[in-house]
This record gives sequence, C-alpha cells and structure tokens, in this order.
Amino acid sequence: MTVHTRGRGLVDITAQLRDALDRSGLQAGLATVFVQHTSCSLIIGENADPTVQSDLERFFARLVVDGDPLFEHDAEGPDDMPAHIRSVLTGCSLGVPFHGGRYSLGTWQGVYLWEHRAEPHRRHVNVTLIGH
Amino acid sequence: MTVHTRGRGLVDITAQLRDALDRSGLQAGLATVFVQHTSCSLIIGENADPTVQSDLERFFARLVVDGDPLFEHDAEGPDDMPAHIRSVLTGCSLGVPFHGGRYSLGTWQGVYLWEHRAEPHRRHVNVTLIGH
Amino acid sequence: MTVHTRGRGLVDITAQLRDALDRSGLQAGLATVFVQHTSCSLIIGENADPTVQSDLERFFARLVVDGDPLFEHDAEGPDDMPAHIRSVLTGCSLGVPFHGGRYSLGTWQGVYLWEHRAEPHRRHVNVTLIGH
Repeated sequence: MTVHTRGRGLVDITAQLRDALDRSGLQAGLATVFVQHTSCSLIIGENADPTVQSDLERFFARLVVDGDPLFEHDAEGPDDMPAHIRSVLTGCSLGVPFHGGRYSLGTWQGVYLWEHRAEPHRRHVNVTLIGH
Repeated sequence: MTVHTRGRGLVDITAQLRDALDRSGLQAGLATVFVQHTSCSLIIGENADPTVQSDLERFFARLVVDGDPLFEHDAEGPDDMPAHIRSVLTGCSLGVPFHGGRYSLGTWQGVYLWEHRAEPHRRHVNVTLIGH
Repeated sequence: MTVHTRGRGLVDITAQLRDALDRSGLQAGLATVFVQHTSCSLIIGENADPTVQSDLERFFARLVVDGDPLFEHDAEGPDDMPAHIRSVLTGCSLGVPFHGGRYSLGTWQGVYLWEHRAEPHRRHVNVTLIGH
C-alpha cells in the first residue's frame, strides 16, 4: 500500500485498510499495519474533531523541538532527528483485530499515518492479514 | 470484555485476560488486546510496587498538562485533549504471546488499562486469540 | 532468545531475529517480539547513522530525568523509575511482518532492544512466529 503525504501531519488511512480487508475476503483475525520508515508512524486517533489533530501536532512540535541544538543528526534538516524521535514515541507497527469482515475499531477511532517530515513523502505501508 | 474504571489511573486486567485464554483452550499463539477508545490505553507495567503506578501518573500529568492553553479541543473539559495525547503516547493495541496455555509475561509484568479521563468510564476491550 | 546489554543504550537484535525466522522455515506471516521486563523496551530505529542513537538517548535522558525528586520509586537507584517510564513510552511488544522468508523491514530500519538501566543486564526476548 502506498500513502502520499503532504508534509507533516496526519493522513487517515482507514478506508484504504478497509479495502485491503474486503479484497482478502477474510472474516476474523488480526491485521498488522507496518510502515517501512523511521520518520513517520502509525497511530489510532479520534476521527471526529479536526482540532484533536492540530492539538496533537502542536503538542509534539513543542515536545520535540525542530532544530534543537541537542541533536547532532541534522543532515536532512532541522526536522530530521525530531522525525525519528516522534516515530519512536508513537510506533511504526499497529495490530488491529477484525471480526465479521470488519475492523473492531470503536466509533471514534481512525487509523492514521503520521508524517513527521516537513516535506511531502511517498510512504510504503505493509498490511498483513492473518485469520480465516 | 468490559472494564469499569474509577477515573484516571491504572486498572490491572491480567486476571481477566487469563480467564479469556483459559476459556479458549488454546496452548500457543498470540493474544491481541485492543481498546476501542481514544482516551484510555493499554500498557504493560511493573506489578509489584504501587509507587511505580503513582509515579507514572504524576510523570504523565506533568508531561501533558490538563487545561494547557495550547489545546483548542476542550469540549469535554481540561482532561479531554490530554487524554487523547496520553493515549497516542502509550497505545491502544498490545500483542502478548502465550505458550503452554500461559501468557509469556515476565515475573514483574502486568497488563493494565490506563484510564486517562478524570471521570469513571465503562471501557470495551477486545481480546483476539490466534494460535492452536 | 537472550540479549546481553552493556548498560543504557540500544542493542541491534535484527540479525538474531533473522536467525530465528530462518530456523523456522516459515515464509509469510507475523513475528511478535516481546521483552519480559519493564525496564527495557523494543523499538524500530534508523540503522545507518550512529548519531541517531546518541541523540535518542540524550533526548530521553532530558525527557525523563534520572533522580527526579518527583519519583518515589527509587529502590534500585536514580535510573529505576525513569527506566519504567521509558519502557511505557516506547513499548515492550513489537509486531514485524515477514514475506518470502524475510522481514518486511525498510532499508533503514533495524530492530533494537533499548536497555534503560545504567547497569548491564541479561534480557529475555520472546519471539513468536505465526504463518506458513
């Protein structure tokens, strides 16, 4: 699965994940979603109010400051090392169960790829389905 | 599985998870524990000294401050957005392997649902067992 | 699987995980890597530039300060409670998919055990493979 990001921010990939499950025909089991990068991550977040997403972004920007002189690794710019740290804090692998051919997500849960780099990127997402 | 919380804090769900595994009769495989909410989370923590839990709580209360003016999303109160951030930082999905009909937890590991809202809640926890 | 650490820092366990997969003979599925401790963790990080690792370490040392008077739990020293908090922030369970007999890791991804205690430790890592 390929996800095109528009620079730093959350991209809702729930619909793409639903398509993958539908195509598989599987009814019950576990989906493992995995990003093959160390500067973006996968989270489950609130899908109703857009200010949750902007607040998340602002909180993490304050927690892990771009261009912080603490960081030696800045070959790709001031957002380089912060992207790696945000990725470690939020994770690149996510297990989502499914039953009756549908993900067991709560009403307000969406699955997001979180781009941590300032520039747009093309991200590879691996979806592995185990079940019957 | 339903977990009743008493407001912010950790609830040990290890025994409930053991019951689910026992009822399944499965011997070896993977349990995926998943909370269907974005304002609580699942962690594995130290199960011996209660001060570990109070220290965790105090650390996170200082890291993600209730009522921080940075947050726009406060429809449900000063603990609303902090609950979402804590949930993203600690995760809502947990994979726990089992062998010989028992979870492969270390001696000092317990599985906890972490309620991040100030008020008590009724939380839905999905346990998916894959194995033989 | 046993991992010997040399005190605080990252230990690359990717090669050991590859051995486990090779020995299994499995081609496609999911590996769940799980540490049976609450004072170390598992992450996927950048495997090319060593300054990423030293920056990660410095960032977390500043985020979770050893000997912080906030912490009551210090029976094993100033790095005791910080190790538990780092473990909760970064996680002790990791799902890594594999296909064609190889992990679906990106080019720059390595799997690391992160020792959070100052002293060297012997850590137990459980690797559970599900697939065919």
